Amino acid sequence: MDWSQRAAAIDGAFSDVTRREAFDIPADVCYLDGNSLGALPTAARLAVGQALDEEWGRGLIRSWNTADWLQLPRLTGDRIGALIGAEPGSVIVADSTSLNLYKLLHAAAQVNKHRHAIVTDIDNFPTDLYIVDRLAKQRGLEVRDVRRADFADVLDDDVAVLTLTHVDYRTSEMVDLQALTRAAHEVGALVVWDLAHSAGAVPLDLAAANVDFAVGCGYKFLNGGPGAPAFLYVAPRHIGVARQPIEGWHGHSQPFAFEREYRPAMDVSQFLIGTPPILGMRALWGALEVFDGIDMTRLHNKSLSMARLFHELAEEALVSRGFGIYSHRDSAARGSHVALTHAHGYALVQALIKRGVIGDFRRPNILRFGFAPLYNSAADVVRLVENLVDIIDHDAFDRMLRESAVV
Amino acid sequence: MDWSQRAAAIDGAFSDVTRREAFDIPADVCYLDGNSLGALPTAARLAVGQALDEEWGRGLIRSWNTADWLQLPRLTGDRIGALIGAEPGSVIVADSTSLNLYKLLHAAAQVNKHRHAIVTDIDNFPTDLYIVDRLAKQRGLEVRDVRRADFADVLDDDVAVLTLTHVDYRTSEMVDLQALTRAAHEVGALVVWDLAHSAGAVPLDLAAANVDFAVGCGYKFLNGGPGAPAFLYVAPRHIGVARQPIEGWHGHSQPFAFEREYRPAMDVSQFLIGTPPILGMRALWGALEVFDGIDMTRLHNKSLSMARLFHELAEEALVSRGFGIYSHRDSAARGSHVALTHAHGYALVQALIKRGVIGDFRRPNILRFGFAPLYNSAADVVRLVENLVDIIDHDAFDRMLRESAVV
Repeated sequence: MDWSQRAAAIDGAFSDVTRREAFDIPADVCYLDGNSLGALPTAARLAVGQALDEEWGRGLIRSWNTADWLQLPRLTGDRIGALIGAEPGSVIVADSTSLNLYKLLHAAAQVNKHRHAIVTDIDNFPTDLYIVDRLAKQRGLEVRDVRRADFADVLDDDVAVLTLTHVDYRTSEMVDLQALTRAAHEVGALVVWDLAHSAGAVPLDLAAANVDFAVGCGYKFLNGGPGAPAFLYVAPRHIGVARQPIEGWHGHSQPFAFEREYRPAMDVSQFLIGTPPILGMRALWGALEVFDGIDMTRLHNKSLSMARLFHELAEEALVSRGFGIYSHRDSAARGSHVALTHAHGYALVQALIKRGVIGDFRRPNILRFGFAPLYNSAADVVRLVENLVDIIDHDAFDRMLRESAVV
Repeated sequence: MDWSQRAAAIDGAFSDVTRREAFDIPADVCYLDGNSLGALPTAARLAVGQALDEEWGRGLIRSWNTADWLQLPRLTGDRIGALIGAEPGSVIVADSTSLNLYKLLHAAAQVNKHRHAIVTDIDNFPTDLYIVDRLAKQRGLEVRDVRRADFADVLDDDVAVLTLTHVDYRTSEMVDLQALTRAAHEVGALVVWDLAHSAGAVPLDLAAANVDFAVGCGYKFLNGGPGAPAFLYVAPRHIGVARQPIEGWHGHSQPFAFEREYRPAMDVSQFLIGTPPILGMRALWGALEVFDGIDMTRLHNKSLSMARLFHELAEEALVSRGFGIYSHRDSAARGSHVALTHAHGYALVQALIKRGVIGDFRRPNILRFGFAPLYNSAADVVRLVENLVDIIDHDAFDRMLRESAVV
């Protein structure tokens, strides 16, 4: 079979989880950066339009009640909860991923306040490490940031929290959430998972894995729009017990009673701080409709098939042209993006973008491509590889490099 | 002159600061709750539409650079800065008012770390008090929450921070920002002002008043939409020195260098945490256009004239009908809303809403009406008072009370 036939076989097999028509993507673009910013679902546009015209414009202040604005963080949270195996009422949409991580790490460290260490992955996404570092300084905790292979060695009975990102933002390697949660619990530590590259991309069952806390991102595979509000998960056993460090009125048991003293809400809304961002949340709310009826295992299987095809084509055509295969290849343990390395990675990503193939570059030399199976197809994989081949072989790539100030 | 003539005289005199045509407000509504949620500016709708269709839909990930998304927190901040007398580069749009207050109180307390007290207003907005209380507990500080008359008594050389709200959310009383800032500085304390009910409503000159820090709200008189992102101000002398407690990647000097160690940005963006909320910020960005060419002193004078008319009409017609005048009447020291008390305040606000006159109710018995002079007129004041008179005199108000479960 030629490349196109191989792609067509995959796309034909996964039509049940393909929703290309639910997105508004420019016809001339092959968009492979849904791991950074998901494409625009038409339902998100409609939801924001309605929020502007009807809810804000007509309903005005009344919409806090009549349009369910006050409930929106929990209603949207439950929609996400359904995608990650969370119990109803355990997920809320709020703030940013970084801030939610801070809130939950603080809460977890407080539950385990007689312990003195936080364990994390030395290759974690930088903002997670910054958040861990500062929190540790504030609470006098030791940070044990180690390689993945060494987690077991540093988990002991002085560890308050293990915090990890489930899918690596560069290699797409997925660690074993259930096993690591169990390992943490065995020494009495709590877990805080970062699901930024997992939610909406891979099947998850937080309840079955006995996860304590988790955070995630609204603007990647959930397609909630630029800077979409993030989400957080608190296991029911911790709700009403664990408390976040920043106590604003929307986390109060009765925000509109205007009491002098803070009384924490006894549900997951205790993890709110200020007034919820309605417009951004409406976009996310609308975007989540696209997942209705989607089997997350099938969806993930589609991206795994695309990744397998990509890695095969890369071996056939790209390794000989100076590329390294950087992403994790094991289908049993990967997320939804792929990555290459190349000495001229930045210039190559720019050349691709000029041809309408959009991925991104991560220092020092990584070309990263997200496969968002709701709207990407295996045909996109072929287009990507063909373009890389063509740039190297036929484009005036040498001249382009000379012109590029960056490389 | 009858009531309508008095109103017409005011509205005629202030046509230079009236922008009713820039807002989309239902024709049958008299909207007097802009102090809770500003009405919809058509420019905000346009800006969000463009952000959805062009920036997100067409530009996709590229818009972080091509549509200035990365700069938007500072660009929007500078637009607000122009309304509050802030130096360029000293204001940034981010997060919620409550969270921004937490960040700045932490930063201020850290600058003054050898002092042990925070002074605030016992009648401050509750979320401000919750934030102060928790921060004080975390840092081992004493909270001196006193009445306004007593601020001077508790300011001494152990006070790290004085934090106050400029305009009271119930009475609309405005305290003397310049004098209180000076008083705090005289004992070596720093100030953190909450401008929630001031920004977009009253003239401010933070630079001239030598203010250290301030926070404010995007969704009230700035008309940024429900849950609009908030703003914060850091005096240039504190930028690069004061540091906030939650260190996420967007406050890093080079967020996209993905360095292992946090290096704080040396400009006001150090006070960012996570990815900025673009859709909400675009709404605020658009809404701020309406202020182009508006003289803030003139704008405030219009609302003062409306408040004066309201208080006169209330004396003429409402006091005898069981209302108390609750709001501050001194034009030299008031913001942009008015308030009444009535034993059946809640039911009266509901009755007004049924008639298309929208204000809000604050416990225990306060009816509150915002005068947003960009779109409200003195004619609205007359309509409000006439409706209150009519409800009391001619409506089946007794029956309504019996039917109301709340009163």
